[in-house]
Amino acid sequence: MPKIVDHDERRLSIVHATWRLIAAKGFRATTMREIAKASGVANGGLFPYFRNKEELIGATFEHVFTATNERFAAVRADLEGLPALRELMLQIFPLDEERILEARIVIPFWEYAANEPELRQVHERTMQRWHRDFTAHLEDAKLLRQVRADVDVTLAADQLMAMLNGVQVVAVLSPAGASPDRLTAMLDDYLALLG
Amino acid sequence: MPKIVDHDERRLSIVHATWRLIAAKGFRATTMREIAKASGVANGGLFPYFRNKEELIGATFEHVFTATNERFAAVRADLEGLPALRELMLQIFPLDEERILEARIVIPFWEYAANEPELRQVHERTMQRWHRDFTAHLEDAKLLRQVRADVDVTLAADQLMAMLNGVQVVAVLSPAGASPDRLTAMLDDYLALLG
Repeated sequence: MPKIVDHDERRLSIVHATWRLIAAKGFRATTMREIAKASGVANGGLFPYFRNKEELIGATFEHVFTATNERFAAVRADLEGLPALRELMLQIFPLDEERILEARIVIPFWEYAANEPELRQVHERTMQRWHRDFTAHLEDAKLLRQVRADVDVTLAADQLMAMLNGVQVVAVLSPAGASPDRLTAMLDDYLALLG
Repeated sequence: MPKIVDHDERRLSIVHATWRLIAAKGFRATTMREIAKASGVANGGLFPYFRNKEELIGATFEHVFTATNERFAAVRADLEGLPALRELMLQIFPLDEERILEARIVIPFWEYAANEPELRQVHERTMQRWHRDFTAHLEDAKLLRQVRADVDVTLAADQLMAMLNGVQVVAVLSPAGASPDRLTAMLDDYLALLG
């Protein structure tokens, strides 16, 4: 089915070409016309790929999620248990300009998803994936005696999920209190509580 | 200056009359016309009080912040240290229908604040207040030997700030994984890590 592959690839290339513009300018302020222009398609040419802004923010959020997982896969090497969990969290945390731009995609995505069941499913699916990853790394950490035997891995994964969402807000809205050093110290201090 | 007082009171009464409507329908989908109607003013009658949606979401967020602090003050009684901190967090957590509606105000507020410096100041001021409250409760908890002497209160307050923002997202977008019992267990498990 080459046509479908082309269609998906074209969608992805539009997202790749426009997500930084959207993040920098703000999703609400960016028009479909500007997005068409930035991705080199004629006015109305976006419609076969994204019928509306809801579809576009969903695809852009998925791109950010995938990019984060790819960064983690690229740096994980032979890390297991707690060090693997730490590295994954650091890839999710808004610690540099690229990842602060990603946070600026995540916040409008939440706002749309709060009112769109299809986007909520995207959120659910991606966050469940991370929750499972956190749980698996914490189970490994237990076996490797990197954390205490009585750590409740499900509740710890819940805490990490809450924190990873919360730091997106902190980084975008209170950047003065969200330096990379401070966010990293916050994470390391939390992980030490499990030890 | 009775006129200014009246003006502020009128603003507050508009927020009181409309915030649940805004939360239930979604801020983006709610028009100024609907808000005028719900608050019993003529079309255009909102303008002296809220010139635009940015001003309205800012005032509505402040209302949610104040309501949360008032709930805490009403139930705190003689709680000190860790139990006081726990009670404040429970008042912020989206544990019932009212507070899930509050979370549905907080998410669009973030989205607007990401692109509006004045709203970002509102966020900064309110979050700094809670960060100071958390730090003070944690310092008390140390003196009362409710937490370990080596707890870093600033980093713990950072963790609580990240979590309180994150649970708003979880409750609105993944309600199945955010029952009151589970959120409360998550908080109690975290506080136990400090003990």
